[in-house]
Amino acid sequence: MQITKFAIPEVIFGNGSIQFLASCAQRLGAKRVLLVSDKGIEESGWVALIREILESAKLDCIYFDELTANPRDRQIQQGAKLYRDSRADVIIGLGGGSPIDASKGIATIVSNGGNIHDYEGANRIIHPLPPMIFIPTTAGSGSDVSQYAIITDEKRQVKMSIISRSLVPNISIIDPDLLVTKSRELILSSAVDALAHAVESYVSRLASPFTESQALTAIRLIAGNIKPAANSKNREALKNLSIASTAAGMSFSNAGLGVGHALAHSLGGRYDVTHGMALPILLPAVIRFNQPSCERKMATIAHAIYESCPAPVSDRKKSLSDTLYNLFEELGIPMQMRKIVPDNSHMEEICKLAVQDACSVPNPKEATWQDLYQICSEAW
Amino acid sequence: MQITKFAIPEVIFGNGSIQFLASCAQRLGAKRVLLVSDKGIEESGWVALIREILESAKLDCIYFDELTANPRDRQIQQGAKLYRDSRADVIIGLGGGSPIDASKGIATIVSNGGNIHDYEGANRIIHPLPPMIFIPTTAGSGSDVSQYAIITDEKRQVKMSIISRSLVPNISIIDPDLLVTKSRELILSSAVDALAHAVESYVSRLASPFTESQALTAIRLIAGNIKPAANSKNREALKNLSIASTAAGMSFSNAGLGVGHALAHSLGGRYDVTHGMALPILLPAVIRFNQPSCERKMATIAHAIYESCPAPVSDRKKSLSDTLYNLFEELGIPMQMRKIVPDNSHMEEICKLAVQDACSVPNPKEATWQDLYQICSEAW
Repeated sequence: MQITKFAIPEVIFGNGSIQFLASCAQRLGAKRVLLVSDKGIEESGWVALIREILESAKLDCIYFDELTANPRDRQIQQGAKLYRDSRADVIIGLGGGSPIDASKGIATIVSNGGNIHDYEGANRIIHPLPPMIFIPTTAGSGSDVSQYAIITDEKRQVKMSIISRSLVPNISIIDPDLLVTKSRELILSSAVDALAHAVESYVSRLASPFTESQALTAIRLIAGNIKPAANSKNREALKNLSIASTAAGMSFSNAGLGVGHALAHSLGGRYDVTHGMALPILLPAVIRFNQPSCERKMATIAHAIYESCPAPVSDRKKSLSDTLYNLFEELGIPMQMRKIVPDNSHMEEICKLAVQDACSVPNPKEATWQDLYQICSEAW
Repeated sequence: MQITKFAIPEVIFGNGSIQFLASCAQRLGAKRVLLVSDKGIEESGWVALIREILESAKLDCIYFDELTANPRDRQIQQGAKLYRDSRADVIIGLGGGSPIDASKGIATIVSNGGNIHDYEGANRIIHPLPPMIFIPTTAGSGSDVSQYAIITDEKRQVKMSIISRSLVPNISIIDPDLLVTKSRELILSSAVDALAHAVESYVSRLASPFTESQALTAIRLIAGNIKPAANSKNREALKNLSIASTAAGMSFSNAGLGVGHALAHSLGGRYDVTHGMALPILLPAVIRFNQPSCERKMATIAHAIYESCPAPVSDRKKSLSDTLYNLFEELGIPMQMRKIVPDNSHMEEICKLAVQDACSVPNPKEATWQDLYQICSEAW
C-alpha cells in the first residue's frame, strides 16, 4: 500500500437532522447564505422548508434558481456572480448531485476566480473555498461528502471531472426524511449509482482499509434495502440507502472510481444520460474486464451481496457480473445501452474521451480506448 | 437510531508519510510551530527528525519538553504560555496519547483562556483552536484522530476527560515506520487499548454504521496482527496495527466508549496505571456485564476475532469474554487487578468516580457504582 489520504466532512446524520442547519451555518460564521437548489426540490417543498429554518434563525437567504439537471459551465459563472453581488458568506447546496456539484463550482470561482474549465482534473484549486454545507435529497451521488464535482462543458459536450480536497464541504447534513418525495425511478437510479461508487472504489488501486470498510458497508446495505426502498418506500430501507450512499461517498471520494464512471461521464456529456441510467448497463461488463486483476476482492463483494440479500444456493454459483445483471433486470432497469442512447456512431470518440477522464486512473486494470469499446459493445 | 455525528481529521497514512509534515504545516499557514513531545520520543530520535524536516522547509520550531507520561494540568498551562510567548502559529503533537493530549490541552487554553479544568466534560470549548497536526508514535491511543483529551488533575488525583469536536486536529499523519523503536510491552499495551476502543465503541449506544464498520476493521486487524507485531516486530503486522488504531479512533471518537474506559480513567488518576495495563484486566468482566444488552453485537465481535485469528473449533464455543481473556493471557499480559494496584482500599471511591466519567454515558447497559465494584471484584 502506498501513502493514502482519507478526508471527509463532518457528517450529521439522521431523520430530522435538517433542523440543525441554522446552527451549523452560524457555527461557520453565516449571516447571509447562498442557497443552491433546483426546480424539482422546490416543487417538493424542501426549498421553502430550508428558507423557513434559516429565516427563523434570522439568517438572510439568497436563492439561486437558474439550475438544470447536470449543471452547465455558464450556470456556475452566474451563481458565482450572484454570491459576490449579494455578499453571501456561506453556500448551502440542497439536492441531488447537480445542485451540490454546482455549489462546489460556484465556491471554486468565488475564491479562485477565472472560469470553471480552469479547474478540470485533479488538484488545480489553490485558494480555500468559502464555507459550504450540503444537504443531499437523493441517496446516491455521494457528492455531499466527496472531493468530486462534475460540471458539463456545453461547447465540448463533455462532463468535466474536478477533483480537489477543497471540494469537501465543512458539513454534510443527511436527513433520510428528504427521500420520501422521490419517485421509484429516482430512488433506484440513485441507489445504483451509489452501488457503482462502492464497487468501483472497493477495487480501485487507491483503496485503503479506511475506504474498503465503508465500501463494503455500502454494498451490504444497498443489496439488503434496494427492493423495499424502491418498491414500497419503506422508511427504514430509505434510511439504510442514505447510510449506504454516504459510506460509498466516503469511499470513492478518497479511493477514486474506475472506467465505469469514466464512460458514464463521456456518455453523459454527449447524450445527457444520467449515472443511474448508464452504470447498471456498464457495470457487469466493467466487472468482467476487471475481474482477473482483483479476483479476491470481487469474491468479497459477491459474498457481501449474498449475505445481505439471500439468494437461492444455485444463484451463489453465478459470477458477480451475472448477479448484478440479474438484480438490476429484476428491478426493471433497462439493461441494454441501445435503449438509452440514439445510436453507436459516436462510440469510438466517447471511449477515447473516457480513457482521458480522471476516473480511469485508479481502475484496477489499465484500459485502452479499445478495451472500453469492447465493454460498450458487450453492453450494447 | 438517533441523530449521529461523524467527524474525523484529514488522515495521511503510510510508511514514510512523515515526509509530508512540512507541506501540511505550510498549508495551515505555519511559520513557527510549537512541537510537543516527550523524553522517550526524543531518545528514539524522532524529535530530531521532525525538527530537521521542519527546518529544511524553513519553518521555525519551538520545542516544549516539560512533559511526563499522563500529562498534568500544570504542564498544559506551561505549554500554553510557551506557545503565546514564542508567537507560534501551529501546534504539532508527536508521540503516544500523552503528548497528543497535552497538545490538545495547550491549544484549548491558547484560544479559550482560563484553566484546563474549565473544559472537563463534553462540549465546553467555545472558540476554534489553533491549527493542529498530530503524529502518533504508538498504535493505540487513537488520540490523533479523536475528540478526546485525557489530562490528569494532580490535586484531585483524577484523569479528566475533555470531549469536544474542536479537539479533532486538522491533519493526522500516521507513519507506521515510527513504531519500530517501540518495546514489545508498549506495542502490546497500545494494541490492547485500541482493541478496547473498538469493542467498547462498537457496542456503544451512540454507535452508527459509519463507526461500526471502522470498529470491526480494527477488531479484525488487531486479532490477526497483535502476535506477529509484538513478538517479531513484523513490519506488515505493525502497519496493520497502525491502521487498526486509526480505525478504532475514528469509531470511539464519534461513538464514545463505555465503563471499561471510565474505570481505567479513575484507576489511572489514582495509581498512574495506563490504559494498556487496566483494560485487558477490565474488559472480560465488562463484556460479561454488558452481554445481555447487546448479545448480537458481541457475537459479531467474536466472529470477527475467530475469522482473523483462526482458533481450534473447540475454542469457538467459548464466550467473547473468555476468548479475550485467553488471548491476553497467552500474550503474557498480567490479568489480575491485584497485580497492578497496591490494594483495594480505594475501590469504592474509584467506582463512584467512574460512574461520573463522561465515558460511562454511552455504555450499552446502565451501570451503578455497585455494578462497577462487582466488575472490579471479578477482575481482582
